Amino acid sequence: MFQTFDDLNDPFCGAPHAALLRAELKRHSLDGFLVPRADAHQGEYVPPSDCRLQWLTGFTGSAGMAAVLGDDAAIFVDGRYTIQVREQVDMQTFPAQHLITEPATDWLAKRLKPGQRLGYDTMLHTVREVRRLQAVCDKAGAELVGLDSNPVDAVWEGRPDAPLGAVSLHSEALAGRSAADKIADIQTALTGKEADACVLTQPDSIAWLLNIRGSDVSHTPLPLSFVVLPSSGKPSLFIDGRKLSNSVRDVLHSLADLEEPDAFKVKLDGLGKAKARVMIDPASAGQAIADAIEARGGTLVEAADPVLLPKAIKNAAEIKGAKAAHLRDAVAFARFLCWFDDAAPKGDLDEIGAAEKLEEFRLATGVLKDLSFDTISGAGPNGAICHYRVSRKSNLTIPVGRPFLIDSGAQYEDGTTDITRTIAVGSQSAEMKRHFTLVLKGHIGISTARFPKGTSGAQLDTLARIDLWKAGLDFDHGTGHGVGSYLSVHEGPQRIAKTGTVALQPGMILSNEPGYYPAGEYGIRLENLELVTDAMPIDGGERSMLGFETLTLAPFDLRLVDRTLLTDAELSWLNDYHRRVREELSPHLEARTLTWLNEATMPI
Amino acid sequence: MFQTFDDLNDPFCGAPHAALLRAELKRHSLDGFLVPRADAHQGEYVPPSDCRLQWLTGFTGSAGMAAVLGDDAAIFVDGRYTIQVREQVDMQTFPAQHLITEPATDWLAKRLKPGQRLGYDTMLHTVREVRRLQAVCDKAGAELVGLDSNPVDAVWEGRPDAPLGAVSLHSEALAGRSAADKIADIQTALTGKEADACVLTQPDSIAWLLNIRGSDVSHTPLPLSFVVLPSSGKPSLFIDGRKLSNSVRDVLHSLADLEEPDAFKVKLDGLGKAKARVMIDPASAGQAIADAIEARGGTLVEAADPVLLPKAIKNAAEIKGAKAAHLRDAVAFARFLCWFDDAAPKGDLDEIGAAEKLEEFRLATGVLKDLSFDTISGAGPNGAICHYRVSRKSNLTIPVGRPFLIDSGAQYEDGTTDITRTIAVGSQSAEMKRHFTLVLKGHIGISTARFPKGTSGAQLDTLARIDLWKAGLDFDHGTGHGVGSYLSVHEGPQRIAKTGTVALQPGMILSNEPGYYPAGEYGIRLENLELVTDAMPIDGGERSMLGFETLTLAPFDLRLVDRTLLTDAELSWLNDYHRRVREELSPHLEARTLTWLNEATMPI
Repeated sequence: MFQTFDDLNDPFCGAPHAALLRAELKRHSLDGFLVPRADAHQGEYVPPSDCRLQWLTGFTGSAGMAAVLGDDAAIFVDGRYTIQVREQVDMQTFPAQHLITEPATDWLAKRLKPGQRLGYDTMLHTVREVRRLQAVCDKAGAELVGLDSNPVDAVWEGRPDAPLGAVSLHSEALAGRSAADKIADIQTALTGKEADACVLTQPDSIAWLLNIRGSDVSHTPLPLSFVVLPSSGKPSLFIDGRKLSNSVRDVLHSLADLEEPDAFKVKLDGLGKAKARVMIDPASAGQAIADAIEARGGTLVEAADPVLLPKAIKNAAEIKGAKAAHLRDAVAFARFLCWFDDAAPKGDLDEIGAAEKLEEFRLATGVLKDLSFDTISGAGPNGAICHYRVSRKSNLTIPVGRPFLIDSGAQYEDGTTDITRTIAVGSQSAEMKRHFTLVLKGHIGISTARFPKGTSGAQLDTLARIDLWKAGLDFDHGTGHGVGSYLSVHEGPQRIAKTGTVALQPGMILSNEPGYYPAGEYGIRLENLELVTDAMPIDGGERSMLGFETLTLAPFDLRLVDRTLLTDAELSWLNDYHRRVREELSPHLEARTLTWLNEATMPI
Repeated sequence: MFQTFDDLNDPFCGAPHAALLRAELKRHSLDGFLVPRADAHQGEYVPPSDCRLQWLTGFTGSAGMAAVLGDDAAIFVDGRYTIQVREQVDMQTFPAQHLITEPATDWLAKRLKPGQRLGYDTMLHTVREVRRLQAVCDKAGAELVGLDSNPVDAVWEGRPDAPLGAVSLHSEALAGRSAADKIADIQTALTGKEADACVLTQPDSIAWLLNIRGSDVSHTPLPLSFVVLPSSGKPSLFIDGRKLSNSVRDVLHSLADLEEPDAFKVKLDGLGKAKARVMIDPASAGQAIADAIEARGGTLVEAADPVLLPKAIKNAAEIKGAKAAHLRDAVAFARFLCWFDDAAPKGDLDEIGAAEKLEEFRLATGVLKDLSFDTISGAGPNGAICHYRVSRKSNLTIPVGRPFLIDSGAQYEDGTTDITRTIAVGSQSAEMKRHFTLVLKGHIGISTARFPKGTSGAQLDTLARIDLWKAGLDFDHGTGHGVGSYLSVHEGPQRIAKTGTVALQPGMILSNEPGYYPAGEYGIRLENLELVTDAMPIDGGERSMLGFETLTLAPFDLRLVDRTLLTDAELSWLNDYHRRVREELSPHLEARTLTWLNEATMPI
């Protein structure tokens, strides 16, 4: 199984580990140190060897940072984790602060004294972050001290080794383009920006560029590594050689110079000495990289990682793969829904049981590579916790008479899926149906949108919310995130959210997942993945419009729909979608599930 | 009358005036010079003495710039003026460029040669603009030369004198707050930003702060002037004393030190010498102001004009005034609509006739101070020109069988109005009705929106477009602009547009004016002004939402509505709005207009 339900954290580690760290800081004459959740690749998952924040505080969330001063400390988390942090972390040692209302920079500004030395690991903080930290220290008269080695590692007993996950090749049939072709395209982009080289630090960019996949972290097939790509000639890939089989090495060797991770800084020094103009992304590159280039006389060209946009815009082969993956996943998901409708109303099914069964159905496809994230299986009040992860301790029996929320996804070699459904268990109140239907209206608002070239996700986000807003309701997360091709289930730069300023382009895949979460009661979220397309020409239209093609194929629970709240157009969309789901899935279903599906997709 | 229909421009002036200017440049050893449309106050209207761009090229639009080099020149205008510029300007001498696709900076970058000297008038270009120009000159190895006097003025024969429009007091009853109170508030804001003083260059900011109005430019009661406001003590108002009557002077004198415009730079020098921290808005302050402060050792604090936001958020008295002004204006407008319905179908009414008659009805209120802009009276194809101004030459007879567009507004002492209606003349095609109804759906989408605190106009803009987008249509202007209180009909910082990043707050007034413009055929625009309010609590809602209260009271032409395209909710809104219009206007109307109104607002 790809998911465990163990309690991962030790809430009593805070005080002793803070003491160990403070002693180490003293040895280096440091008055403080920052411990972010990130590793040098700034991804969503980090390997156990880099879970320094968890070692120090017990916190297992996917974003956050601790600050440790001589006699004060804090942990900073965002709105998703305000409840979780209190359960996982010793609040005496690490009082929790909200990243937005009291960011670390404000907290430090109030506490740093003139002459104090604040340390940070130069590989773990991005160029952009370090600028903010530097401004705080300058104002306080304190010194920001970049460190080449991490004091946490010095005192972390039993720190795991860095992962050595095997690298595999991602076939050109699935990738749709050769690595050589992609490299040439990025090199053209570098030349356009008058850069002599660029540094890639995000492993999904590297995986895409070289048509490889890895297995260093959970749920995402990433090869933790770095690349230096010159504007002409071979790129250098810095990766532990033990991750490469002979056959993979042979193929990679023809594309890139293969070097050990130790050689990365030597390479950067060399670029500096050669006075090269080197492109880095200040939002993801560690400060150490900028320092190495500039120290020897190189020039930084700051720009977004040049792979981000080409990777986000899927080509025909990737789209074909995504459709195949979604059909396969939909068959497994329909079987799960059919099974659930039988099992849940008995009243003894629990969250873990549901998540395990769904994984079983996916495993039965025979080609499941991984889940794309830990399944969010949220019964009753747990459904209202947007990023809930069920553990043995939190596991609830799914109550009859409330909606049940399940958000899950799979990694197949041909595509990454992500789907959320909210399912009626027993009879549901009129209020629950009203809430469900308002969320559904928002989902349909996005799915049916047409929009001109240049429209950003921020412009569309309102369509998912306006009916909730009119009811005095809202949800506190973005409406949609980008999704990779057998890569990260959360990928940029596109998103449907207030902050999504990037224009949507045909070939991008985004989630469409509005929700509503009455705290302590239940959660509602309805999520499909949508492919941005050149929409069909419109009768009487004079401008070409983009639109969405829905990839995900699963019924919305009609027992939770209040038909009177839908407009005629919304009702047509729902019935059309259900007809499509029925038609596409039926050939692949056994009699029992088919009977269930026919019922679940009946026109209303 | 407050509007003329004369042809304002001379399309043959380009070549001779460019020659005069080039000779003058030679005398100053300059290789080029920039002639923006703006004056030192960066407002929408400039007095005749500052219409340098018009003198040089003939162009009368409200935004643009000419660049003159030794053997090359161009005029840069935005999308609103691409047709107009070709009619008004000698394209041989000043080829037209699109501000967005080939901005002046790109044009200059291609042409400037190392060592060349490019001149600009330091009062007419903002700090932000000069930064862009400086970057271009630096890259080209050219010198950007700031000038204290304008070479155009030296060769402009018969240049009008600067205006001496009388200043009047804006009563505290209408303003809702004393000037002293406003000054104290802005001073608190300055202290919060650690600024010793701020410089105000926008006359509507000055008018709001000191509760005065002026008469220096068309359609907006602005007193062209500057203010230096220290963080404590009296502000200094730099204004030509001849604009002040004795009684106005007496009141103003108690609030501010009154100084002649010549003393402005002396004051700035003084702030510099005193090493003061001086707040300026780099988006509106001329470079000369920054130069004067910095040259003597002062420090710039760059921030948005601190008056912008308090001015945009209308207080109870201003809201009461706006409602009175809108009711008064609506009565005049209803009389116009009634008259028009009788006159236009005869087939001999023209655009000027319609505009004149509307002005007559407004004049008959007895309290009309001015129009808030030149009426856009657009018959047939002229309706498709978004910023059309009718002249004797362009004047069309209003054709029967097409929609007629009229966009107009009034300045009353208690408020500024702005309304657009599109009116059926004779029978209309199904296609016209479909277009009208799609625009109406967008209008209703904005008007009925509810949204949480913090929502920007950019987030709402999509609601005005989504139904057009689904039909493959769109419009190329923002959905709404801010509106002042007996001040500019276009005021920031709020707007409903892709670029409207400022959060909407209760008390702000915005237009809601989606449109659709089939080129060469007709124009459709439907505009009401909306007041942002704390919307009524919503049953079952858990978050407080903001909303809009419509200020404008006039029927939408039901003869152009295709009822089958409206949802039940849209239909209810339309009928409710019409009932409100009928109820509020009826007590003020004579029998004939009342009969017409009852018919025009019948439920459908």
